[in-house]
Amino acid sequence: MEFEDLVRKRCMVRAFRPDPVPEELIQKLLSSAVRAPSAGNLQAWEFVVVREPETKRRLAEAAVRQMFVAEAPVVIVACRNMERNAGKYGGRGRHFYNLIDASFASLMILLAAHNEGLGACFVGAYRDDEVSRILGLPEHARPVGIMPIGWPAEAPSVTERMSLAEVVHYERFGRR
Amino acid sequence: MEFEDLVRKRCMVRAFRPDPVPEELIQKLLSSAVRAPSAGNLQAWEFVVVREPETKRRLAEAAVRQMFVAEAPVVIVACRNMERNAGKYGGRGRHFYNLIDASFASLMILLAAHNEGLGACFVGAYRDDEVSRILGLPEHARPVGIMPIGWPAEAPSVTERMSLAEVVHYERFGRR
Repeated sequence: MEFEDLVRKRCMVRAFRPDPVPEELIQKLLSSAVRAPSAGNLQAWEFVVVREPETKRRLAEAAVRQMFVAEAPVVIVACRNMERNAGKYGGRGRHFYNLIDASFASLMILLAAHNEGLGACFVGAYRDDEVSRILGLPEHARPVGIMPIGWPAEAPSVTERMSLAEVVHYERFGRR
Repeated sequence: MEFEDLVRKRCMVRAFRPDPVPEELIQKLLSSAVRAPSAGNLQAWEFVVVREPETKRRLAEAAVRQMFVAEAPVVIVACRNMERNAGKYGGRGRHFYNLIDASFASLMILLAAHNEGLGACFVGAYRDDEVSRILGLPEHARPVGIMPIGWPAEAPSVTERMSLAEVVHYERFGRR
């Protein structure tokens, strides 16, 4: 799809048909994810691909019972790697760059999913420790976003935005 | 451009021709930025568009003397809004969601710039307080990324990535 159309039409999808999502499509999403930019190209991200029903159910519970997460055929959990760039960047790498890196990669997954006709959603509300336990994350990986992915079972509904005038400033903050 | 081509070809550009960038293109980039998803659609982002040479020079200095920042005709500084979602989400909104929101919006700017044939770069290395002072940011806005934007003066050079096998896990971390 043309990038402009993709940007205009993309929306969060929270209802999925049970039809399976081919593994090759998931690989395409992940291939887009890793094309995201990252600080020093150090790629401080990790992805856990979940298809097992029981693991999805536990993730949904950890995501403060957003049970639609469990209904998606595939869930990708994007994580930040707390070590990969810390050698080069120290605390700024560990607490700032890696969250930006993993966010960039997550948005790539959301856009790539929509580009394939899939629906996806970014869930940021979850109990971190519980997600870490479910996925067996080591100390150096922390969850960023839980992304349920599947064929949409709901009509797309593009949400409104604030006007540019409310969030864009010229030369200095507050100057319109 | 097709999304897949855009993803494959996008790269960081750090050298710019002095030719001006039409304001309507900047508006297109900002319009893409605000189509990014955000927690609760609360859009905890702000953008400062800088064209004044002296302000760009000071931003470049604050960005640990990455002087190519000053050579771009336009610099967009993406900020996180520390208040907009705090009422709904508290500390998680203020310290986590707003950085993800602003990162999503920043990547939209980078992709949209490339889609228009422009070059852009995301600079995360800067002295936060100095950037805040230069742009007159209030307490409730904090810088996330400095993005110089202009017509590329260097051939695109797409950087390599780690293999998917190094960053993708199945069902549990470490399972390939």
